Amino acid sequence: MALRAGDHSQVAMNGLKEKVLTLDTMNPCVRRVEYAVRGPIVLRALELEQELRQGVKKPFTEVIRANIGDAQAMGQKPITFLRQVLALCVHPDLLNSPNFPEDAKRKAERILQACGGHSLGAYSVSSGIQLIREDVASYIERRDGGIPADPNNIYLSTGASDAILTVLKLLVAGEGPTRTGVLIPIPQYPLYSAALAELNAVQVYQDNVYAEGSQFHSFKKVLTEMGPPYATQQELASFHSVSKGYMGECGFRGGYVEVVNLDAAVQQQMQKLLSVRLCPPVPGQVLLSMVVSPPAPSDPSFAQFQAERQAVLAELAAKAKLTEQVFNEAPGIRCNPVQGAMYSFPRVQLPPRAVQRAQELGLAPDMFFCMRLLEETGICVVPGSGFGQREGTYHFRMTILPPMEKLRPLLEKLSQFHAKFTREYS
Amino acid sequence: MALRAGDHSQVAMNGLKEKVLTLDTMNPCVRRVEYAVRGPIVLRALELEQELRQGVKKPFTEVIRANIGDAQAMGQKPITFLRQVLALCVHPDLLNSPNFPEDAKRKAERILQACGGHSLGAYSVSSGIQLIREDVASYIERRDGGIPADPNNIYLSTGASDAILTVLKLLVAGEGPTRTGVLIPIPQYPLYSAALAELNAVQVYQDNVYAEGSQFHSFKKVLTEMGPPYATQQELASFHSVSKGYMGECGFRGGYVEVVNLDAAVQQQMQKLLSVRLCPPVPGQVLLSMVVSPPAPSDPSFAQFQAERQAVLAELAAKAKLTEQVFNEAPGIRCNPVQGAMYSFPRVQLPPRAVQRAQELGLAPDMFFCMRLLEETGICVVPGSGFGQREGTYHFRMTILPPMEKLRPLLEKLSQFHAKFTREYS
Repeated sequence: MALRAGDHSQVAMNGLKEKVLTLDTMNPCVRRVEYAVRGPIVLRALELEQELRQGVKKPFTEVIRANIGDAQAMGQKPITFLRQVLALCVHPDLLNSPNFPEDAKRKAERILQACGGHSLGAYSVSSGIQLIREDVASYIERRDGGIPADPNNIYLSTGASDAILTVLKLLVAGEGPTRTGVLIPIPQYPLYSAALAELNAVQVYQDNVYAEGSQFHSFKKVLTEMGPPYATQQELASFHSVSKGYMGECGFRGGYVEVVNLDAAVQQQMQKLLSVRLCPPVPGQVLLSMVVSPPAPSDPSFAQFQAERQAVLAELAAKAKLTEQVFNEAPGIRCNPVQGAMYSFPRVQLPPRAVQRAQELGLAPDMFFCMRLLEETGICVVPGSGFGQREGTYHFRMTILPPMEKLRPLLEKLSQFHAKFTREYS
Repeated sequence: MALRAGDHSQVAMNGLKEKVLTLDTMNPCVRRVEYAVRGPIVLRALELEQELRQGVKKPFTEVIRANIGDAQAMGQKPITFLRQVLALCVHPDLLNSPNFPEDAKRKAERILQACGGHSLGAYSVSSGIQLIREDVASYIERRDGGIPADPNNIYLSTGASDAILTVLKLLVAGEGPTRTGVLIPIPQYPLYSAALAELNAVQVYQDNVYAEGSQFHSFKKVLTEMGPPYATQQELASFHSVSKGYMGECGFRGGYVEVVNLDAAVQQQMQKLLSVRLCPPVPGQVLLSMVVSPPAPSDPSFAQFQAERQAVLAELAAKAKLTEQVFNEAPGIRCNPVQGAMYSFPRVQLPPRAVQRAQELGLAPDMFFCMRLLEETGICVVPGSGFGQREGTYHFRMTILPPMEKLRPLLEKLSQFHAKFTREYS
């Protein structure tokens, strides 16, 4: 593959008068399909951040990314045990250190034994380290009250988004050059979830996993209890990740998908698809193994692990409560108890003139509201219209993750903006 | 999203007589396009491993994956400095430990400062941590003798394979339901590289990055020195990863792509595509930052870092030499000095009757040879036919990474099989 004269002339033959790869010549699927996966609100937030960096004057000094559940970016502290085990795996010299608890060392040694060359630096098989897939299966069995889970149906992934995209890829059937992709008719739950996953991927990405994780498990359990044909035929895919809940380890990109009742040939295709990316990042696999197999009550790390976990969950609960309170004090905003641990989904009343103005602009009314919110306050939230709200109602979704001292002013600023917006269009 | 009766009846309406998602109803692109990305040799190796686990008797006891450059799985030790910095980042309590060198601590602190919430657990921006992109740009500038590199043209990725697939996705233009994808006509180098990447992705995946990494850099330099229009118009994408060379950190999935002279609108599309997967795994980004900015001679870790690095490279050189020697002693095998640090690409003579037999079976002759090799010895190598060898010549590609004490018997077993194969078909 040396640089030969023949290659040079080949380059010259192409003329080089202009770019060869342009919007017109590039893959049209990327232009169209993937556009749906990137909401205009998030794109605008990125632009605003750039403008702020360039010194452009705005009515705010920072963009607040309340659209994405990035817990540690918002100040949530990592769980010590997870990081101890991972540090031991990354740098096994630490196995001799007296500063790490014995159970963390045992976990790390067990994981390293299961790694190629006993190192995180080796590829795992494409579906993930077998030992960890077995741990995940045991975890699912415990959660579902003993309903069996097969490690061979579990695939570790680069965060949940990767697994969701893989499953969607199996489902999407493209036709014709202008067709972006059509979901094939499959039973309600997977279609619903896949569609939701796709929509969520648009605007907030990973939390769908949070919101749905337990739902999917329930589905499996409910279906199993319904007996055949549901238990034996209903195809399901359930996702989970280390980004959510008390872990909040988004940056490590660890996750898994469990598939149930999948056609064997389709499952082989899925395996093939996963293998193209070689393997999910091993550190994320390691963290996942901690999540599905945390310290037991008899382990030395149990007390600290539980205390840290409870503290995170208690703070989330307090934030959820605060969010509900502040929003429900605001006229025209109504907030149900927060669903899941990281997000609120308040309903907002929008005056008819605002709805009309949005329609003139070709925008969903809640998109119009959220876009104006972003432009005037720097607060980035996700319009509810993507989530399938009841006709004529408007919502937005925001994370409740900012630290307490920032969350209250954020909620108040948002409520005040809603009041101003309502006055402006009344 | 509760489980409602309406949903149940929806499920029932679908009948559940049979699987809904089958080879016929699934995304046909996955079935076709992606098949090319998974060679039959590798698939067969996976099957053989499963059969061995199930106790099926074979003429060998283990499958030797000489197709993939997985250095640490083969016993290569990680570089201490890389793992120290990563362990410090994973578990910052260690910043107080006297057992870590000061320069490792400084590196870790610098990286943590650049992370959301000062934690690896936060998402980075989709293109990767800005600081590390700047480090990569400086590294490229040094390599190319000062030719400028723009951090905004650098995208960190989940290993190089992820970046290669992203660039290929931009290039591929699909048409019609049965069209798997066509490469648009672009100048020779990117087309060649993209095609090579695709082919390599078929059978060995990531080493193309190794083989091409430096080539691509040379391209940029050569093109720049050629002046306009090459320097200003020639579109290039160059890939690099932490899997190769002295690092061998495959499991962390760290890599980057640098794009040069890309149309601005196309580059935006690329950015969008990357953002769908949220962010590359942060630990891989951290390792990459060590690779592009290793200890300087004045740093306390320099001596050990250099010694370890040299030891890995010296051992690779010795293995390359041994491979060349053993193969060149075998009649009918000819092995050039090993190209790159991890692979050999020996040429094998195949008797006309073997070529004929392969053609009867509808196989490329070297595919036939490699498949028989795998079935009879458990050695998994990649046929050369995928790499564009000269008409009428046959090659295979194998990694030289197994430890010395395993490499020699492997090479001898392979040579003996070739002799037996030759006798059988003469």
